[in-house]
Amino acid sequence: MDMDKYDSVMELAKRRGYLWSSFEIYGGTAGFYDYGPLGAMLKRRVENIWRDIFVINEGYYEIEVPTIGIEDVFVASGHVGGFSDPLSECQKCHESFRADHLVEDVASNPDTLSSDELSDIIQDNNITCPDCGGKLGDVYEFNLMFSTKIGPGSKRIGYLRPETAQGMFVDFPRLLRFYREKLPFGVTQIGKAYRNEISPRQGVIRLREFTQAEAEIFVDPRDKTHPGFDSIRDHVINLYSDPAQSSGTEPIEMSLGEAVEQGIIAHQFLAYAIELTHQFLLRVGVSRQRMRFRQHMKDEMAHYAVDCWDAEILSDRFGWVEIVGIADRTDYDLNAHSTVSKTDLSVYMEYDEPKVIERIAVKPDMSTIGPVFKGKAKAVTQALKSLDAGDLTGDEVIIEVDGEQVTIPVDMYQVEQVRETIRGENIVPHVIEPSFGIDRTIYAILEHAYREEELKGEDEGRIVLGLKSEVAPVQAAVLPLLTREELMGPARGIESALKRKGVMVAYDDSGTIGRRYRRNDEIGTPYSITVDYDTLEDSTVTIRDRDSMKQVRSPIDTIADVVHDLVHGHIRFEDAGTPIE
Amino acid sequence: MDMDKYDSVMELAKRRGYLWSSFEIYGGTAGFYDYGPLGAMLKRRVENIWRDIFVINEGYYEIEVPTIGIEDVFVASGHVGGFSDPLSECQKCHESFRADHLVEDVASNPDTLSSDELSDIIQDNNITCPDCGGKLGDVYEFNLMFSTKIGPGSKRIGYLRPETAQGMFVDFPRLLRFYREKLPFGVTQIGKAYRNEISPRQGVIRLREFTQAEAEIFVDPRDKTHPGFDSIRDHVINLYSDPAQSSGTEPIEMSLGEAVEQGIIAHQFLAYAIELTHQFLLRVGVSRQRMRFRQHMKDEMAHYAVDCWDAEILSDRFGWVEIVGIADRTDYDLNAHSTVSKTDLSVYMEYDEPKVIERIAVKPDMSTIGPVFKGKAKAVTQALKSLDAGDLTGDEVIIEVDGEQVTIPVDMYQVEQVRETIRGENIVPHVIEPSFGIDRTIYAILEHAYREEELKGEDEGRIVLGLKSEVAPVQAAVLPLLTREELMGPARGIESALKRKGVMVAYDDSGTIGRRYRRNDEIGTPYSITVDYDTLEDSTVTIRDRDSMKQVRSPIDTIADVVHDLVHGHIRFEDAGTPIE
Repeated sequence: MDMDKYDSVMELAKRRGYLWSSFEIYGGTAGFYDYGPLGAMLKRRVENIWRDIFVINEGYYEIEVPTIGIEDVFVASGHVGGFSDPLSECQKCHESFRADHLVEDVASNPDTLSSDELSDIIQDNNITCPDCGGKLGDVYEFNLMFSTKIGPGSKRIGYLRPETAQGMFVDFPRLLRFYREKLPFGVTQIGKAYRNEISPRQGVIRLREFTQAEAEIFVDPRDKTHPGFDSIRDHVINLYSDPAQSSGTEPIEMSLGEAVEQGIIAHQFLAYAIELTHQFLLRVGVSRQRMRFRQHMKDEMAHYAVDCWDAEILSDRFGWVEIVGIADRTDYDLNAHSTVSKTDLSVYMEYDEPKVIERIAVKPDMSTIGPVFKGKAKAVTQALKSLDAGDLTGDEVIIEVDGEQVTIPVDMYQVEQVRETIRGENIVPHVIEPSFGIDRTIYAILEHAYREEELKGEDEGRIVLGLKSEVAPVQAAVLPLLTREELMGPARGIESALKRKGVMVAYDDSGTIGRRYRRNDEIGTPYSITVDYDTLEDSTVTIRDRDSMKQVRSPIDTIADVVHDLVHGHIRFEDAGTPIE
Repeated sequence: MDMDKYDSVMELAKRRGYLWSSFEIYGGTAGFYDYGPLGAMLKRRVENIWRDIFVINEGYYEIEVPTIGIEDVFVASGHVGGFSDPLSECQKCHESFRADHLVEDVASNPDTLSSDELSDIIQDNNITCPDCGGKLGDVYEFNLMFSTKIGPGSKRIGYLRPETAQGMFVDFPRLLRFYREKLPFGVTQIGKAYRNEISPRQGVIRLREFTQAEAEIFVDPRDKTHPGFDSIRDHVINLYSDPAQSSGTEPIEMSLGEAVEQGIIAHQFLAYAIELTHQFLLRVGVSRQRMRFRQHMKDEMAHYAVDCWDAEILSDRFGWVEIVGIADRTDYDLNAHSTVSKTDLSVYMEYDEPKVIERIAVKPDMSTIGPVFKGKAKAVTQALKSLDAGDLTGDEVIIEVDGEQVTIPVDMYQVEQVRETIRGENIVPHVIEPSFGIDRTIYAILEHAYREEELKGEDEGRIVLGLKSEVAPVQAAVLPLLTREELMGPARGIESALKRKGVMVAYDDSGTIGRRYRRNDEIGTPYSITVDYDTLEDSTVTIRDRDSMKQVRSPIDTIADVVHDLVHGHIRFEDAGTPIE
């Protein structure tokens, strides 16, 4: 079988220590992957870039809550009730399958069908087990949360969170206080989430345990403009709107300002989140040409959402794959938690200007009430004051005093028009949520960085992982030309100096220099530093640029600073030393 | 009730957004804590310092494996069989208790007792439920792993890992290849681990979900010297050895060189790991005076371990608390996984010099074997060659050929002494493991940083969180003296410039300047920058040092660089500007 690009990338990822199937010595288990030494470092750098954008620059502080959640949280979020896939089990080999996948060839929109409808389609079309041909059982909804028990006994059910988002909603009251009761504010989380997939078969694209980076930005529902929008208004993004999809036209490049003005993107805050996402994906190395923002169509969007866009990347095997979702979830989540927890999750917001309103007020006549109701007179007057205009239609009113119905004739009160000043109101914020799948982003980076090159005048080509130097796990390789003490000494010195500067460096003295360059090309090391016999003469070393394969000579005594600055993009390679012809 | 220091620290931690009880709006659940906006940032910085030491500088690459593990892994590790606490449940209120804690007052070494012994002690001493006084049930062993099911049905049990270590043992074959089959090499992991505690009652000290940072360093068992030991030989550490504990003497300050030479620390590699731990704890801000390294006593150490030391910190409420364990676990873990997975987990290690050995060899006599055994002659000669000296006692030998026992008389073979050259052997590495509890480290940092100060000439004192600037969540506060546009403009400019440099900055314009200084003292912000009317005159701002409360004036156009360098310890506060009297 020919290797497609997924195979090539995964072969390299496995061989070089980026991604490994988990539990390999025990035969492995679908839906779990390990990040090897280079993969974990790449992942860490990607997460830190996300933090730089969302936490440091936007000021959306990160929090960290447990991955185990108690049942109430997921009752409120709707996951206990509705986070499921339809499942059919083979009666013969007992393998389980997603029923909507089984009927894909015979039904046009299988993910909208009920369990009963799916059962009927399987029976009517004589669909059998894809593995053994056995008869398939009735379809039922399988909840995708991993469940466990907290503490001894079966008293307290816990679930592994299916998303990091809920932790931020649950902490809303504390967060609101942290941000001194002012909107908008944002909060972020990077961490593990879990979905107990029925039968995951897409490698690293569909994992049972995965990493999310999510921001929940709480905004005033009456004002979804963004203060920084002017600075990004002219940025052009590849947008694939709902109407374009419906009418079968192509995505188009459009400025965010235009997209908001034309009503394609619902509002500035959402457009700003799309911009941040775009910046992040470009900075970590997703190809601009293989990225688009696709709007959810009306029937795929959650009923409560205002607008939703997915960042999608183009992959060779899987086509367009969603790696980020950006949605305006309105007040749905906070209202849900407010109801289940019986906690007020609104914000008191002062108006810019106090509002003066006129309303009908009831003024009890004490001189008539007192003698009639005696000890109950106070309760009666209070009940009368709390009436509003709608209660005052007839020539008497019925009020409740200490659980008793009491009729009050019209001569015991007066109705007046009063003016009141209202300074603000309680509002449940709306939530703008950019939600990133970090594992898929990592895969996109690897696939988009992977290339095979032929080299002029050489028999063998090379494989290059053209990672951006900001995300490359190994940032510099130090290579003594030969394993001789006089070369290894200075090489070890450079290694130490780079480590002190926080540069991740690989010292490598095994094999020919050409083979070591190839190895570093494959793992994506942007710069290799070679110590040779000229070093002993003139105290310079060679720096080689991975992508262009150009080389410069640079003084050994400033090499750590120069390489540090190269890696962090502070200087250009041309300025790192004297070019070698 | 008087607040002790734990209460004071936790009150501040809660109020300022460091630590919150999880699921608070749902009533909370013991054993779970959230890191709030400042806590999560502190934790991230602590983890990054750990990475700088272990990953960047020691070169022990980090990996990241799932938190869910399959059953085989924990059968091999011994957790399925033995990771439990003795539990007794109240028959009346059904609360569960750790049985060893229930008998603490009447038994001298309760953690060494069996379930039956504990049951007897409870009955004999009429111990009843601490909550309701009800009768307590029989003691049984409760496994502390959270269990779940992977995929549909109950086919595959999964456990939330009780430690990150096992993932590194399971990946050993791949890691060995990554490190090109050479010892020693190290690998690290920072991530969540889980223990389903029976009834956790020590707040953030005993969590059901917590973060570990672990290194597994695979070494040649025949050589536990460390190449870097000379550079740390003279470092002095507070050691509390097993003999000192047994004899009731105090911990002593001792150089690591001396400790290894006197056999107090088992070997250089362990001593080196102790040194790294010490460096880490000091750098993140654990007090040198409230830290010690305590050796495990013989009866508390695992049977397979060679030597084990805990880094302990002194806390006001809990006394000495273990926050790091550093052990030589020998080949126990790799052997256990090798046996259960039926995978060879040894390393072929070449000798420095090939060894020449002499051994007895059997030389078959083809001229007699051929005619007798015909078609089987080849199998017979091979079986003879594989015999060794011990099989050759009589004047005939019995061998097995194709499942049949065959007797070979002594005239069909000769016995010779031969010399062979052996170039190496397969060796199962030993494991040196420093294992860090990150949550307890965070708590230690907070408690050791917390202080209440009286201020000369002022009515109110201040609370200061004296965090090291390398770990402080907010690194700089920017404070316009008044909320006037002419001051807020430049202040916002400084905020932006600091963000671009990756400095976490808080812009704060609410309340008096004194109140804003107090607020930043409480959250541990090391530097505050104030923009006032002099700024508009001479383009300088005030930088205030949290600890000394000293102030300097510094030019606004270089302020971002100066603060960045202050935060990272590149310049001293005295050199950051002109002192204000």
